[in-house]
Amino acid sequence: TFIRRMQTVTLIPGDGIGPEISSAVMQIFEAAKAPIQWEERNVTAIQGPGGKWMIPPDAKESMDRNKIGLKGPLKTPIAAGHPSMNLLLRKTFDLYANVRPCVSIEGYKTPYTDVNLVTIRENTEGEYSGIEHVIVDGVVQSIKLITEQASQRIAEYAFEYARNNQRASVTAVHKANIMRMSDGLFLRKCREAAEKHKDVKFTEMYLDTVCLNMVQDPTQFDVLVMPNLYGDILSDLCAGLIGGLGVTPSGNIGANGVAIFESVHGTAPDIAGKDMANPTALLLSAVMMLQHMGLHGHAKKIKTACFDTIRDKKVLTKDLGGNSKCSEFTEAICQRVRDME
Amino acid sequence: TFIRRMQTVTLIPGDGIGPEISSAVMQIFEAAKAPIQWEERNVTAIQGPGGKWMIPPDAKESMDRNKIGLKGPLKTPIAAGHPSMNLLLRKTFDLYANVRPCVSIEGYKTPYTDVNLVTIRENTEGEYSGIEHVIVDGVVQSIKLITEQASQRIAEYAFEYARNNQRASVTAVHKANIMRMSDGLFLRKCREAAEKHKDVKFTEMYLDTVCLNMVQDPTQFDVLVMPNLYGDILSDLCAGLIGGLGVTPSGNIGANGVAIFESVHGTAPDIAGKDMANPTALLLSAVMMLQHMGLHGHAKKIKTACFDTIRDKKVLTKDLGGNSKCSEFTEAICQRVRDME
Ligand SMILES: CC(C)[C@H](C(=O)O)[C@@H](O)C(=O)O
Ligand SMILES: CC(C)[C@H](C(=O)O)[C@@H](O)C(=O)O
Repeated sequence: TFIRRMQTVTLIPGDGIGPEISSAVMQIFEAAKAPIQWEERNVTAIQGPGGKWMIPPDAKESMDRNKIGLKGPLKTPIAAGHPSMNLLLRKTFDLYANVRPCVSIEGYKTPYTDVNLVTIRENTEGEYSGIEHVIVDGVVQSIKLITEQASQRIAEYAFEYARNNQRASVTAVHKANIMRMSDGLFLRKCREAAEKHKDVKFTEMYLDTVCLNMVQDPTQFDVLVMPNLYGDILSDLCAGLIGGLGVTPSGNIGANGVAIFESVHGTAPDIAGKDMANPTALLLSAVMMLQHMGLHGHAKKIKTACFDTIRDKKVLTKDLGGNSKCSEFTEAICQRVRDME
Repeated sequence: TFIRRMQTVTLIPGDGIGPEISSAVMQIFEAAKAPIQWEERNVTAIQGPGGKWMIPPDAKESMDRNKIGLKGPLKTPIAAGHPSMNLLLRKTFDLYANVRPCVSIEGYKTPYTDVNLVTIRENTEGEYSGIEHVIVDGVVQSIKLITEQASQRIAEYAFEYARNNQRASVTAVHKANIMRMSDGLFLRKCREAAEKHKDVKFTEMYLDTVCLNMVQDPTQFDVLVMPNLYGDILSDLCAGLIGGLGVTPSGNIGANGVAIFESVHGTAPDIAGKDMANPTALLLSAVMMLQHMGLHGHAKKIKTACFDTIRDKKVLTKDLGGNSKCSEFTEAICQRVRDME
């Protein structure tokens, strides 16, 4: 008999609708017999010595051990000085690549069809350095920090990603006409990586031009790589093209296999606990996780069941245009998964 | 008899297709009997004392005297250290507000109908400060500079614009969750301006959220105000929604009535001199200019003739989906203008 080797993954259900959609994902994984064991952890930032914000030791320890995490939405605390938990997680585990595939979903109508691209965002520096000063009264500066090391790392990641995922081209997105030194450095590193990956086509484009072309014809884009803030903007724009954050998966990738996959929508406190949430974004993030772990069979099965359910239109949550509960949508996906056995 | 008081405007035809589309605009203004006298000037940056780049004295003198300019596309020189002429013009005349109305054009099909919004971009500082340093080898910083004065000026401009143009709401676009001090200052000035303009609704939104919502439903937006780089991005994105830079007007507004109106598309060297260019963006920029000068009757006449010609679909340039030459499209608009007399 075949013995499944279970792998343990840290699960951070999160706030608001987080627990419901996490439980939906667990049920679907169970139905698909995915060899995953969940280790649940809550993350609420605590203050360590010297007032430094950090994630709780037991969550850190779990991630350090398992290397791989799945995370629901986290509410942003309003306390002054409290950092975004999402940013703190990216920083703590040096998750330097934020990867968001945006693929049109058949049956879910938007003004665009055939979107099929991936945004790869530098996740550790740039405009997110957090360094700001008051120069004199009424004059403030924020520092955008670009390093050779981080630029090279993300550029190489983008080309490796393209190669490993049968994607034909990488576009570097920049404003090196304005930020000649910082975006210039980023761009130079992309050009160097392109030199090493001659099998992948390389182009460069200004961020404003990308935005304009994106809404006119997104099919011209494939893999896009860019500094932190541009990625924040462009990944949300692209999510909008295919139906929003409720259907868009996301992965934060670090070195040595470390990664956290997350839905990037909010906690939706208004519908939390009402069995109305749409688990698609977290489920597709979990599918990315399976692919990352090399479990391509399970990934494919779950992905197919999810997209078939949406295309079929019979059992959909409200935000997807239907009348069904989260539990009914989840069960419809489970049923399809079981039918594939 | 009615004596028309002519006003002189500095005309910078620009490079590539610039002269053709400028001449199209002049013909249409002539047909509409717009009381404008053109003073043509070429701008090619020259180096003054100490190697400082500046616009030629006779162009500067003309603008200083006339206060109002109309400008075609300028090619960006590739010489190292040579600044963008567009940026140099904005800086020289302290044109602090970049205003781009984006309104769906009936008869010109895009995935969106009913877009009707205006982006107002801070045009003098922010990420465009030009201050960059190498900290150590491989580590570069760019400085984003936000001042109370410039933020207040643009915030008040946005609310005044909304009031004067019968627009109901202003949205401040920011990333103050990340750049707490700089975008925080910008946002504070917007809130203060909102306090003074209670007749205009005020909302605040993250840039990434605006991009996502914009491609999902642009009709929810009205006037948007934002720092320099965000405006660069968002104005191009919005232009894309209504058909691109070939149909989008733009105005750069300074203090005391000083303003330069410009088409923001490129010089299109491939079709330059071939009577194929589309003069719409420059024409609609010239219409904004007429409105700025209080010549609302002439503005309306020309705008109507232009939109009627596009809606009619009989005489259109290639990029608009037709087979006509620039001169034929121009003549069709002139004819409609004459028919209105
Ligand atoms: C939550 C927020 C700090 C974050 C960001 O700005 O990066 C979010 O928009 C994202 O894209 O993950
Ligand atoms: C030409 C370029 C420097 C400019 C900018 O980045 O502002 C352009 O994109 C614009 O929007 O006018």
